[in-house]
Amino acid sequence: MADWQKITGGITAPRGYQAAGITAGLKPSGLPDLALIFSETEAIAAGVFTTSQVKAACVEYCRQRLQAKHSARAILCNAGQANAATGTQGYLDTLESGMAVGQALNIPSESVLLASTGVIGQRIKMDALRSGIPKVVAALSETGSDAAAGAIITTDLVTKSIALETTISDRPVRIGGIAKGSGMIHPNMATMLAFVTCDAVVSPALWQQMLARAADRSFNSITVDGDTSTNDSLIALANGQSRTPAIIEWGAEAEKLEAMLTAVCQHLAKAIARDGEGATCLIEVEVTGTHDELSARQIAKTIAGSSLVKSAIFGRDPNWGRIAAAAGRAGVPFEQENLQIKLGHFLMLENGQPLQFDRVAASAYLKKAATGAYLQEDTVLISVNVGNGHGSGKAWGCDLSYDYVRINAEYTT
Amino acid sequence: MADWQKITGGITAPRGYQAAGITAGLKPSGLPDLALIFSETEAIAAGVFTTSQVKAACVEYCRQRLQAKHSARAILCNAGQANAATGTQGYLDTLESGMAVGQALNIPSESVLLASTGVIGQRIKMDALRSGIPKVVAALSETGSDAAAGAIITTDLVTKSIALETTISDRPVRIGGIAKGSGMIHPNMATMLAFVTCDAVVSPALWQQMLARAADRSFNSITVDGDTSTNDSLIALANGQSRTPAIIEWGAEAEKLEAMLTAVCQHLAKAIARDGEGATCLIEVEVTGTHDELSARQIAKTIAGSSLVKSAIFGRDPNWGRIAAAAGRAGVPFEQENLQIKLGHFLMLENGQPLQFDRVAASAYLKKAATGAYLQEDTVLISVNVGNGHGSGKAWGCDLSYDYVRINAEYTT
Repeated sequence: MADWQKITGGITAPRGYQAAGITAGLKPSGLPDLALIFSETEAIAAGVFTTSQVKAACVEYCRQRLQAKHSARAILCNAGQANAATGTQGYLDTLESGMAVGQALNIPSESVLLASTGVIGQRIKMDALRSGIPKVVAALSETGSDAAAGAIITTDLVTKSIALETTISDRPVRIGGIAKGSGMIHPNMATMLAFVTCDAVVSPALWQQMLARAADRSFNSITVDGDTSTNDSLIALANGQSRTPAIIEWGAEAEKLEAMLTAVCQHLAKAIARDGEGATCLIEVEVTGTHDELSARQIAKTIAGSSLVKSAIFGRDPNWGRIAAAAGRAGVPFEQENLQIKLGHFLMLENGQPLQFDRVAASAYLKKAATGAYLQEDTVLISVNVGNGHGSGKAWGCDLSYDYVRINAEYTT
Repeated sequence: MADWQKITGGITAPRGYQAAGITAGLKPSGLPDLALIFSETEAIAAGVFTTSQVKAACVEYCRQRLQAKHSARAILCNAGQANAATGTQGYLDTLESGMAVGQALNIPSESVLLASTGVIGQRIKMDALRSGIPKVVAALSETGSDAAAGAIITTDLVTKSIALETTISDRPVRIGGIAKGSGMIHPNMATMLAFVTCDAVVSPALWQQMLARAADRSFNSITVDGDTSTNDSLIALANGQSRTPAIIEWGAEAEKLEAMLTAVCQHLAKAIARDGEGATCLIEVEVTGTHDELSARQIAKTIAGSSLVKSAIFGRDPNWGRIAAAAGRAGVPFEQENLQIKLGHFLMLENGQPLQFDRVAASAYLKKAATGAYLQEDTVLISVNVGNGHGSGKAWGCDLSYDYVRINAEYTT
C-alpha cells in the first residue's frame, strides 16, 4: 500500500509556495499564457532536461543556472513561443526575462528559472512578456496552482495537477506537481513541461538523484509519437518548509520521499500520455522477466510506442502479433520460446505458442477502455513476460487515431 | 553518371533464371499468393534477415541453410500467413515445404530457401501449399518475373520490380530484383521481402559483404512506421551464367557490381517507402557534414521516420522546426549553431538561425509532390547539414495520412 494520501492544492499544497497564471498576450488565442511559481524561501532545485542536440534557449539557461548553484526561488513559464532555434537573440531574451522576474520579485536573477513552450523558431513576444511579468507577480497566491496549471498548457485538453502528503518524523511532508504536454511535440506547440514543489528538507545531491530516477520511471517511460522536444523540462524545488529532519543520506525516509516523488511524476506522466493528441485511451505496458529494469522499460516503451500496436488498439483489435513483433524489435535479447503476452486478463501467447482466446470478449475489453473514466477505467493493460529474470518495468502511451493525423496535418501556414 | 542501364525482365533478366507466381488458395482474397524463383544452376546465395528477437520459422530456416552452405537454387515465397510465432509446428511446416519444393524440382532440399508474409501467429495453410507447389513449378518461365512479383505482395498497391545491366570484361552482367512491403509490418499482413538475382561470377564472401552494405544503404534506410517485421528477408542469388571473369577480390569490377546491386536495392526500397500505407509522396532526406556515413544515415532516418515531420508534409506545411527537432533527437552529437535545413531548394535555417523564406511557394512545392509522377516528381527532398565532417547518408520515407490510421485500425477481428 502506498505510504501517502492524495490532497488538494497542487503545487501550492507544500508549505511556502505561491503560484499564478495570467493572460499576457503571448498566445494568439488569448488564453492564459504566463505562469509563475514562487518559493517564499530559497529552495533546493533539481532539473532534468531534453536530451536533444537542438535545445531551446531556456533549457541552456536553466542548465547553466543549476550548474552554478543548486537552488532557486522562482520558475517563470511562457506558452506560445518555444524560443528554440532562435539563435543568439533567443538567448538574450531569456537573460532579460530572468532579470525582469528577479527585479519584480526583489530576488537575485540567479534564483530565477525559465521554461517556454510553443512554436519552434519563434522568439518570445518580449513586449507582452515585459508588461506581463509585474502582473503575474502581483497575482501570486497560495491558492494559485490551478491558474498556473492552466497557463502552461498549449493544445492540451485538460490541465494536469496532483498533490500528495506523507509524514516524516510525525510531521507532514508534501509534494505537488503540474505538467503540460499532449504529444512530445505538438503541432508547432512544442514540449512536455513539469514543475514539482516539495517542502521536505533534503540535500541537493539526493534530490537530484531522486528526480533523475523518478523521471526515468515516469516521463521517460511515456511515448505519444516518439518525438522528443527541444524544450522538455522537469524542474523540482524542495524548500524545507516542512521543518522535518534533513534527509542527507539514503535510508527509510529518503526512500519514502523518493517513492512519493515518483508517484507524483507518474501521475503527471500518465495524464500526459492519456491526453496524447487524438487519444481515446491510456495504454499501460508492463514487462517482466528481463535481466534488469532498464531492459524491461525498453521493451515496454517499444510496445507502447509502436504505431501498429497503437492503431490496433484504436481499432479495438486484440492483435497480439503486433505486440510480439514490437517486443522482438526492442533491441533486448530474449528467447521467443519464453514469450508470454496478456491483454487485460486475456492470455494470448504462452511459451511462444499462440493460445485460443475469446476474441469478441477481448475486443469488448478494448472498447470499454475508450469509454472508461479518465485515468482509471480508460486504461488498456498489456502484460509481457520474456523470461525468468527479475527485471520489470512499465511504460505508458495512447492509441493512434484519425485525430492525431488531423491535429498534426491540418495546420496550414 | 551511372555505369549501367535499365532493362526489362525483372528477376528473369539475368541469364539462367526462371520464375512463376500462381494462386494456391492461401490468401482469403483469392489473389496470387505463391511465388517461385529458380536458378538453372546452383547459385551463390547471400541473405540479410530481420533483427527481431521474434523471427518467423522461414527466417530461422534460411539462416540455418545459408550458414551450412552459401548457395541455393530456389526460393519459394507464400503470401497470406507469416508463419511467425507459430512454435514448433511452424518450423516443421517450413521443413516440409522445403522438401516438397526439392522433390518437385528434383534438387536437394538443402538448395531451397523459403519466405513467408501474412498474418503473424498463423501457420501456412499446408494443404493448399502442398497442392500449389507442383503447379508453381509447372508454371516456371523465363518471363515469369511479373507473375512472381504479383504473388508476393499483400496489401501493396503496386508490384515492385527492376533490372539493370552493365558490362564486365565486355560481356553483359545483369541484376534483377522484386520486392514487397508497404509498411514495415502491415495490418496483419507482415513484412518487407526482396529477392535479387544476378548472373555475375562472384565469390560467396564478397557477395554477402556487398549485399549487407547495399541493404544498409537501401532497405535499412527506409522507414514507414518504424516497425521491423518478424519476417523481413532479403535474399540475393548470383549464378555465374554471365560467364564473366570471377570477381574474387576488391577492385574496379567488384565496385561496379556492388554499385549496381546497391542501385537495384535502392530502387526497390524507395518503391516500398513510396507505397507506404496511405502515403501521398516519397520523402528523401539527405544528411551531410557528419563524422561518418552511419551517423548521417541515423539522422536522416530519424527525420524520415518522425510522425510530426510526416504529418506536416501530408498537411503541405513547410514546418522546418519539426525537422530541426527530429535531427536534434537522433542521438548524434552536433553543434546547433552549424545546423542548416533545406526543403527542396528553399533554405530555411542556416548556422542555427531561422531565415525568411517564401512560405506559399514552399507549401506549393509540397503540394506538387502529392500529384507528381510515381518515383520521380513525387519526391519531397529534405537536405540537412550538421557540420564540417565528410560523412553523408540518405534515408527514405513517406508522409503520414488519415489512410495510414484507417488501414491499420479498421481491421476488425
